[in-house]
Amino acid sequence: MKTYRDIYKWGDKRETKIDQGTINVIKEKFGFTDSELQQTHLLGNQIVKLDKTCQISQNIIDQFIKIVGEENLKTDDFSRANHSYGKYYRDLLKLRKEEIPTPPDAVIYPKSDEDIEKILEICNKNQISVTPIGGQSSVTRGVETPLGGISLDLTKHLNKVLELNEINSTVTVQSGMYGPAFEEYLNQRSFSCGHFPQSFEYSTVGGWVAAKGAGQASTGYGKIEDMVLSLKAITPNGTIHTKTYPASAQGWDLHPVFIGSEGTLGVITEITMKIRNYRPNNTKYASFIFKDFKFAVDAMRTVMQSGIGVPHLFRISDPEETEIAFKTKNFDHTFADKFLNTLGYKSGHRCLMFVAVEGNKSYTNQVISSIKKITKRFGSFSLGASPTKKWLEQRYSSAYLRDPLMDLGIMTDTLETAVMWDNLIPLWTNVRKYLKSREKTVAMVHISHVYENGANLYFTFLSPMKKGDELNDYDEYHKGIIETIITNNGSLSHHHGVGRTLAPWMEKELGKENLKLMQAIKNQLDPKGIMNPGNTLGIKP
Amino acid sequence: MKTYRDIYKWGDKRETKIDQGTINVIKEKFGFTDSELQQTHLLGNQIVKLDKTCQISQNIIDQFIKIVGEENLKTDDFSRANHSYGKYYRDLLKLRKEEIPTPPDAVIYPKSDEDIEKILEICNKNQISVTPIGGQSSVTRGVETPLGGISLDLTKHLNKVLELNEINSTVTVQSGMYGPAFEEYLNQRSFSCGHFPQSFEYSTVGGWVAAKGAGQASTGYGKIEDMVLSLKAITPNGTIHTKTYPASAQGWDLHPVFIGSEGTLGVITEITMKIRNYRPNNTKYASFIFKDFKFAVDAMRTVMQSGIGVPHLFRISDPEETEIAFKTKNFDHTFADKFLNTLGYKSGHRCLMFVAVEGNKSYTNQVISSIKKITKRFGSFSLGASPTKKWLEQRYSSAYLRDPLMDLGIMTDTLETAVMWDNLIPLWTNVRKYLKSREKTVAMVHISHVYENGANLYFTFLSPMKKGDELNDYDEYHKGIIETIITNNGSLSHHHGVGRTLAPWMEKELGKENLKLMQAIKNQLDPKGIMNPGNTLGIKP
Ligand SMILES: Cc1cc2nc3c(=O)[nH]c(=O)nc-3n(C[C@H](O)[C@H](O)[C@H](O)COP(=O)(O)OP(=O)(O)OC[C@H]3O[C@@H](n4cnc5c(N)ncnc54)[C@H](O)[C@@H]3O)c2cc1C
Ligand SMILES: Cc1cc2nc3c(=O)[nH]c(=O)nc-3n(C[C@H](O)[C@H](O)[C@H](O)COP(=O)(O)OP(=O)(O)OC[C@H]3O[C@@H](n4cnc5c(N)ncnc54)[C@H](O)[C@@H]3O)c2cc1C
Repeated sequence: MKTYRDIYKWGDKRETKIDQGTINVIKEKFGFTDSELQQTHLLGNQIVKLDKTCQISQNIIDQFIKIVGEENLKTDDFSRANHSYGKYYRDLLKLRKEEIPTPPDAVIYPKSDEDIEKILEICNKNQISVTPIGGQSSVTRGVETPLGGISLDLTKHLNKVLELNEINSTVTVQSGMYGPAFEEYLNQRSFSCGHFPQSFEYSTVGGWVAAKGAGQASTGYGKIEDMVLSLKAITPNGTIHTKTYPASAQGWDLHPVFIGSEGTLGVITEITMKIRNYRPNNTKYASFIFKDFKFAVDAMRTVMQSGIGVPHLFRISDPEETEIAFKTKNFDHTFADKFLNTLGYKSGHRCLMFVAVEGNKSYTNQVISSIKKITKRFGSFSLGASPTKKWLEQRYSSAYLRDPLMDLGIMTDTLETAVMWDNLIPLWTNVRKYLKSREKTVAMVHISHVYENGANLYFTFLSPMKKGDELNDYDEYHKGIIETIITNNGSLSHHHGVGRTLAPWMEKELGKENLKLMQAIKNQLDPKGIMNPGNTLGIKP
Repeated sequence: MKTYRDIYKWGDKRETKIDQGTINVIKEKFGFTDSELQQTHLLGNQIVKLDKTCQISQNIIDQFIKIVGEENLKTDDFSRANHSYGKYYRDLLKLRKEEIPTPPDAVIYPKSDEDIEKILEICNKNQISVTPIGGQSSVTRGVETPLGGISLDLTKHLNKVLELNEINSTVTVQSGMYGPAFEEYLNQRSFSCGHFPQSFEYSTVGGWVAAKGAGQASTGYGKIEDMVLSLKAITPNGTIHTKTYPASAQGWDLHPVFIGSEGTLGVITEITMKIRNYRPNNTKYASFIFKDFKFAVDAMRTVMQSGIGVPHLFRISDPEETEIAFKTKNFDHTFADKFLNTLGYKSGHRCLMFVAVEGNKSYTNQVISSIKKITKRFGSFSLGASPTKKWLEQRYSSAYLRDPLMDLGIMTDTLETAVMWDNLIPLWTNVRKYLKSREKTVAMVHISHVYENGANLYFTFLSPMKKGDELNDYDEYHKGIIETIITNNGSLSHHHGVGRTLAPWMEKELGKENLKLMQAIKNQLDPKGIMNPGNTLGIKP
């Protein structure tokens, strides 16, 4: 029998322990005592039990079963509960509180594109909502089912590479394939997909495209929208299958309409995307420390605008994130720390930068040495390759900490935005000011996706929950962050997408006319509004 | 008083003489005698006189005049005739034949975005067609007015840079600005636009975006769709103004809908795009000769997929284009020519490659030397920097030859397509076979826009006109080329766009469902179908 905790835990579902470095930070920042560190909060250890039974008639269920077979349709409580939420902080809270008011009525695992066509036809005829489901790593309430209906889980069967084309350097892959299987397939053939979100291990290619994501090497390889060449999407009003060209001028492109569609237009089933040579031995690493955030940002901007080529991984941690990194890695108060302080890289001001460059050796050498030269002009101190390599070792697993932190009653979430260079420092300053207006709050910021014209800002915050009022407390705080971002010219999202969490701001952000155009496209492809309904992206229904 | 010839001549409208090298080729390939070289054909020297008067009522004309002022509305014959065609071979034939069956009823030069809004309102109310007009360099019948109406010429007033943002490395420019003025503005401030179509001197930023074009440095800087960050478009159903971010995930992007819209959705008035540092002194040049086309293509593909960075200009001429280049430059039969033949670079097989790399010096050095290494593996012989530099000197002006060639009764046109690497050689082979199935035809092919996953192919053909039946003869030949391209997995266009010329193939090429989606977007923004109507892009009306 499975519990709510079995659903919400991120990653491989093992229990992760908080390391001593982080414990020390918690003690210092939140004043937690040793006995508080033994207490736990909202574990969600009850066996899952839904109040709401499946609302779809047996007749229709039978039609579905005829299509996919009995083993591929689930209406048991756990399966439905397990498809009720993504991995947003609020989702985790809800599961910990054992609240699932609107589960899907059924979970279906289609075996083929044809299955999906038939299922959509039935759903369209009977006005049954359909939510496409990948890895469920959405952090924007993208996979919730406020109107019930079916969760169409693509990960069980639609998870294969359909074609690798080595000459063209492209791959055609089914949308339900998880990151690791995809990358392993490619690595074995000396290629790499180049897209590594922190959620890589538990997200799918289809989810990357549908939520318009970015991987940790996006500065070199681009966001997912820069990688997709064509796709197939099955909508309630027909199938859109675009052709694969390196580029073209045949009217406006249609595949971008599905990148960021978040399940509202149809089910993306196939994606043809660029791939790259896999040559990890060529990769060059560097890391630097800067005296303050402004210097680091200026160095980063200069690198991106200098025409030296681009690094693939490119990150800066702001002073507080740098400080916490030093503390949790027990670097604080070491001899090296003192040395850096003496040189003027003072804790509370200094900032870490990580760099990795992929490609041909001549390229990686040239780019890394150009970056060294440029950063030096901004007063950087080189820390060598190893800090970046160490960071890469835990590139996915650091997110596993979220669950044990929440066990301790600590609210912890992340928010991200994209901003043009000239607005970056003001946005950072003002969002930080807002974040820190809450007492006992750790607010760490980094830049991790960098462009010629601007960058993202990624905010991580930790603060003790307001026990008993966790949801309202969070919602109010969260709302203030979004509004501060928007007021300071940041986008609603750079790579997490919108889902239902950010939907209320879409009209204000995009403008009425723009949202009307989105709605018209929605209405064309999904005239009855069955695809991921309930205000996803701020479109109706 | 102005003639049809004053309208159709390309470029600066001066008379251009054919150089002796080209004359020799014409003699050799078409068997033209010296006396035939003195004859001229279809000069269009008559004074322009339209049969059709302006069909818009005086009342409405007065409403327009109230908005833009008398000086900005023209209904005289020459102004209307001058806005009847683009620069497609067939357009030039029509003008030479002094045939303008469907001129616009009036030409309007709006002074501001507000003027455009008001004009569209009147046109929408009165079902008057509106064709946005940039440099009129369309080679796809994109600016024709089969239903009359107004030509909205943006070049007179809407031709300014609105904002240069040096920190963000972006510029916001009005759509009617011509290439040279735009680039000069940027160069003076140490920036470059990076977009240099062969029509650069006589095309506008708005036209680049609306027709989804590519410049000669696109291999480094991307096509226009890779440069545009945001835009403003005034449609009959409201104004779409997108925000400027380096990237974002706020649902699917809306600005791509206008890139390639070819006037069918609305009037693009402002564009915010990336710009680059202007540092011509850093540019590195190289040129090579290969033993055959396949070697050259394989070398090119390897360069693009090697992770060495990218060159900006990257071209190969196929054997026939190489041969003609050698002949017209009087290189044929020189000592150097013989030497190359001895080395195995035989005329009729050998292929020229041009390379230029822009950016930081460390980058340009690294990329050019990597390219030298790679091409060597494919048997290249280096010709040094100067052939590429010489090619760049005439990068725009070679197109001026078209008019004097047509004066001699020579049909000359170009067609282009994009194709994945694995289909490139078969497509090239089969289209060439088709082209050469016409007797006395010179068929030159080059690759000029290169990607990791494929490239364009650009076909130039010359052949004596079938005098008296020039149009049908051309149409039939042209149709065969398109069909051969499509059958061989080429796109309908890589950068010229679709217009009305390629419209008949759109449904076959995109598929019914895809075209339906385009039509739905059209219907949303232009419900009465007033924007550039008459089958542009294969959408209705
Ligand atoms: C710890 C953690 C770290 C993260 N880090 C990153 C990061 O670095 N970069 C990043 O971009 N994101 C990140 N995310 C967010 C999330 O992982 C991405 O949005 C991811 O792309 C979602 O993929 P998924 O397969 O899990 O999709 P899901 O969560 O299952 O679905 C996401 C949305 O897409 C729709 N959808 C999914 N598949 C399809 C399909 N085939 N057709 C149509 N619609 C579909 C769903 O309906 C839903 O609206 C992170 C999330 C977590 C929990
Ligand atoms: C000799 C020659 C060489 C060429 N070489 C190239 C090349 O190398 N690369 C390339 O990409 N193209 C090339 N072209 C084609 C042409 O120059 C491009 O399509 C160019 O981008 C058109 O720009 P324009 O300002 O002349 O637009 P126009 O010809 O005036 O218009 C083109 C289309 O866009 C629409 N349009 C124009 N402005 C707007 C606006 N502001 N809002 C909405 N719709 C608008 C028009 O209605 C029309 O449908 C060449 C043409 C010639 C004659």
